[in-house]
Amino acid sequence: MEMLNDEFYMQLALNLAESASGQTGVNPVVGCVIVHSGRIVGMGAHLKRGEGHAEVNALNMAGEQARGATAYVTLEPCSHYGVTPPCCERLIVEGVSRVVVATVDPNPLVAGKGIQRLRESGIQVEVGILETKATQINEVFNKFILTKMPFVTLKTALSLDGRIATRTGHSRWITGEKSREAVHTLRHRHNAIMVGVDTVVSDDPELTTRLSVPGLHPTRIIVDSRLRVPLTSRVLNEAAPTIILTTDLAELTKVRQLEDQGVEVLQCGAGPRVDLVKAMALIGERGISSILLEGGGMLNGAMLEAGLVDKLMLFYAPIIVGGDGAPSAFAYKGPEEMSSALRLQGVSMQAYGEDWCISGYPTSNSSIEHLGKADVKEEK
Amino acid sequence: MEMLNDEFYMQLALNLAESASGQTGVNPVVGCVIVHSGRIVGMGAHLKRGEGHAEVNALNMAGEQARGATAYVTLEPCSHYGVTPPCCERLIVEGVSRVVVATVDPNPLVAGKGIQRLRESGIQVEVGILETKATQINEVFNKFILTKMPFVTLKTALSLDGRIATRTGHSRWITGEKSREAVHTLRHRHNAIMVGVDTVVSDDPELTTRLSVPGLHPTRIIVDSRLRVPLTSRVLNEAAPTIILTTDLAELTKVRQLEDQGVEVLQCGAGPRVDLVKAMALIGERGISSILLEGGGMLNGAMLEAGLVDKLMLFYAPIIVGGDGAPSAFAYKGPEEMSSALRLQGVSMQAYGEDWCISGYPTSNSSIEHLGKADVKEEK
Repeated sequence: MEMLNDEFYMQLALNLAESASGQTGVNPVVGCVIVHSGRIVGMGAHLKRGEGHAEVNALNMAGEQARGATAYVTLEPCSHYGVTPPCCERLIVEGVSRVVVATVDPNPLVAGKGIQRLRESGIQVEVGILETKATQINEVFNKFILTKMPFVTLKTALSLDGRIATRTGHSRWITGEKSREAVHTLRHRHNAIMVGVDTVVSDDPELTTRLSVPGLHPTRIIVDSRLRVPLTSRVLNEAAPTIILTTDLAELTKVRQLEDQGVEVLQCGAGPRVDLVKAMALIGERGISSILLEGGGMLNGAMLEAGLVDKLMLFYAPIIVGGDGAPSAFAYKGPEEMSSALRLQGVSMQAYGEDWCISGYPTSNSSIEHLGKADVKEEK
Repeated sequence: MEMLNDEFYMQLALNLAESASGQTGVNPVVGCVIVHSGRIVGMGAHLKRGEGHAEVNALNMAGEQARGATAYVTLEPCSHYGVTPPCCERLIVEGVSRVVVATVDPNPLVAGKGIQRLRESGIQVEVGILETKATQINEVFNKFILTKMPFVTLKTALSLDGRIATRTGHSRWITGEKSREAVHTLRHRHNAIMVGVDTVVSDDPELTTRLSVPGLHPTRIIVDSRLRVPLTSRVLNEAAPTIILTTDLAELTKVRQLEDQGVEVLQCGAGPRVDLVKAMALIGERGISSILLEGGGMLNGAMLEAGLVDKLMLFYAPIIVGGDGAPSAFAYKGPEEMSSALRLQGVSMQAYGEDWCISGYPTSNSSIEHLGKADVKEEK
């Protein structure tokens, strides 16, 4: 049985926040619960960029009952005029007497100023309730607000021996229905999806979100150094915006043809391969804060090597494929020593039908080691 | 809170049984709890082949209090004169009034006869309480008693991309300390451990059980088609018996030298590779009912292809190795179609420190498919 305490209300606020994951654009997900004399009088989440923040939605519901109430907010209330007026002022005006905050806003425009403003106005403020969880649900926002680079989640389906296809290249299907449903949920929750042109050429996927309920389609990003993408590809249709990352080697005629179809083509370096670091910066400039990377072994490997992957979600089917030529999920050179392998941290595990998803975050240390610097270090 | 009922006492009996795993040789593990008027009056497990069965140990503890009591036994009491007299008769003599059995004994010498004998003598018998768990803890015995072939557990440590070494062959260490402790526990729980001669040549391991408490050493089995094993290998020392599986290509002089060192050499086929099916039959004849296979990719692949693996325990470290030449945990040809991949069933997951162990059982259907027969079937 759950106990009625600050954690109880904050957990509810976190649930509200998380439920809106994928629909707030570059904004964080935030939840708010307002409690007066042992009774929940308001609850809300930030639902869409440019519309009401979580506090505002919850305060609107609470009305007069906000006076003297406690507000539980998963993220520090904003203190600045952004697209909407600052939530701090609204909390003060409504006469809330206590505010419980899960985590400080990493946005340099806020970063403690919201909490300070509330305290100065005489409101009792507590910070840090369920902080870890609150930080985790905004991992995308937390990176983007500081770096303007998109948070990249590498997702792949693979066999227990790390293969994404048999030795003949056959790959349908590795994982089961539940895993595929999870992947479409991930598409809904990311601003963009990214694949290599080989996937487009061989499978002609639409790369949209298909669920039992309507979902949001991600912007489609194709890595295509020489613009080999066929003009009739389904990925170029109007279901969602499409961005193609290419190089100076791309033919100008093809660029124009694609642009005429409404596709944005971004030149990322001289080639022969797309400069992925530059590409991610350009994507970030376009207000895309999260990418679901559904690449093949080569693109996955290149993104890992470039240190551009923030999270991995590996969906393992309970099968063994064998086959020495069978393609691996991560095709790149790799280190000489086992101790220099790319190490994940914060690893967790979830079952999806017969499959298992292992999630984790590359450690920045091992990312550096991974690029060969550790070997030098060891020779000292 | 656990409820006091038949399942409660049977779970205790199962715990007693499982605790003796690895020390009963080819015998099953069995636990027994005796309860009289709401009080446990006796408990025991079968501890060593040739010594008292679980019922006998528990009845000895209960003494006079067994009269009118209920006995919970994880495996049907034996009805035949084996190394020890039948437990049925002892239960009857002691005046037990009710016997609760988790599972019927698959041993053709018992197979329901024990239960029948108890009932005929007027004892109330119930069968099937926590049956699934009781069957699972004797998976080794259940196979061996019917086939006389050893139950093979394939254990390997691997990266998340299915590698057992880097592209340079470097492999120490993949998994962490907790996983390695688990592996030594597995050695204790298996009659034998099996590796290829390459492992002996390159690492010179002793293949004994090393834990924080004393453990039992498994018999060491080396697959060595041409007897390349160095006579000074640690695996040939006196810590435990050693068996070498070879072919007719082996030099007789080397056979004699090994035999002089107390090593048993078994000829398994004409070569060039060891006939693994024949080898397993010969191993079974020697009263070895369980093997922990700690092979490299080649031996693992060959055992899988031959359908000789009963269970897989894959210890994943949270690392990605990459490297196209990096050795895979399962080096064999593999199927053309993803649907013909070797599928595991009864898959479970356990954390060991930072590592995760995925366990499962190859499905017999997909084993057959795996050998190429499914392709034929699909072409019909």
